[in-house]
Amino acid sequence: MFGIKMMKIAVLLLFATLLSAKHASAQSCCGIDNLIDQKIQAAVQSAVSAVTSKAQLICLNVSSRGADVSCPSGYKATSCACGMACGSWDIRGESGCHCQCSGIDWTSARCCKVGLNG
Amino acid sequence: MFGIKMMKIAVLLLFATLLSAKHASAQSCCGIDNLIDQKIQAAVQSAVSAVTSKAQLICLNVSSRGADVSCPSGYKATSCACGMACGSWDIRGESGCHCQCSGIDWTSARCCKVGLNG
Amino acid sequence: MFGIKMMKIAVLLLFATLLSAKHASAQSCCGIDNLIDQKIQAAVQSAVSAVTSKAQLICLNVSSRGADVSCPSGYKATSCACGMACGSWDIRGESGCHCQCSGIDWTSARCCKVGLNG
Repeated sequence: MFGIKMMKIAVLLLFATLLSAKHASAQSCCGIDNLIDQKIQAAVQSAVSAVTSKAQLICLNVSSRGADVSCPSGYKATSCACGMACGSWDIRGESGCHCQCSGIDWTSARCCKVGLNG
Repeated sequence: MFGIKMMKIAVLLLFATLLSAKHASAQSCCGIDNLIDQKIQAAVQSAVSAVTSKAQLICLNVSSRGADVSCPSGYKATSCACGMACGSWDIRGESGCHCQCSGIDWTSARCCKVGLNG
Repeated sequence: MFGIKMMKIAVLLLFATLLSAKHASAQSCCGIDNLIDQKIQAAVQSAVSAVTSKAQLICLNVSSRGADVSCPSGYKATSCACGMACGSWDIRGESGCHCQCSGIDWTSARCCKVGLNG
């Protein structure tokens, strides 16, 4: 009978262990929940910092003989300059510069896009 | 007495199962940990790629009779052009173009903002 | 012998409990998996919205006597304007404006960068 009493105690202990294990797992679930939130926030913040510190205007100049010139693909014209001191020009489409004074010898475009540095 | 011995063995096996289950759960916790990191990195990288590939300059032209014109709300003036071949102008505030030559017939502004394409 | 039978039933119940606990943990793993995906997506979407709504062109003007002027560090020149009605200019490097007409009295640069508002 002593053996059976021992068994009863052992089985009770097992149930207790099982219950406490379930409880511990529930707690570790909530600790993990916070950890996951922290992981996500850290990764997102780091990406936002990287993108915003690298995002910048990337600009270049193109120029051509005559009254017209176009920016390379992907760039937008932000302004034009003309030979013969001419300040009258217009931008055609997204990226074409056209100088309006007659007999223009050269036309240049300032071309920019948004890009990541490095 | 044979039954009690069996019980003892069964109880020991249970403890062993319980311990191995706990061990397995600890391992799956770490595998899950890595999986979560991978999930986060994948989502963040995908968002960074999407934003940086869609971020661009969005530009338009406005022009008006007279010596002054303004960009629409949300746009900044990146340059101005003037009638009468005039290249002397200034940008007032964030988005206003003013041509300085006297008797100017038209003024245009190149207006740009940062936006997402598509 | 009644006690031993009870023990056998108890041990079987324990195994059943253990198995169901493992099953429940597998289910909660998948519910948690979806929750984690939702958390990540929400955080990433929120960051993307914040960045794209705040990203903008930040522009300023600089001007100087003579034929040359430069934008402050971090800014790119998007256009130049010149005194004496001159519309012939070029941008040197990333941020320098040079007016080409002889005897130029003033030169100004429109300088922009990509930044976060607020």
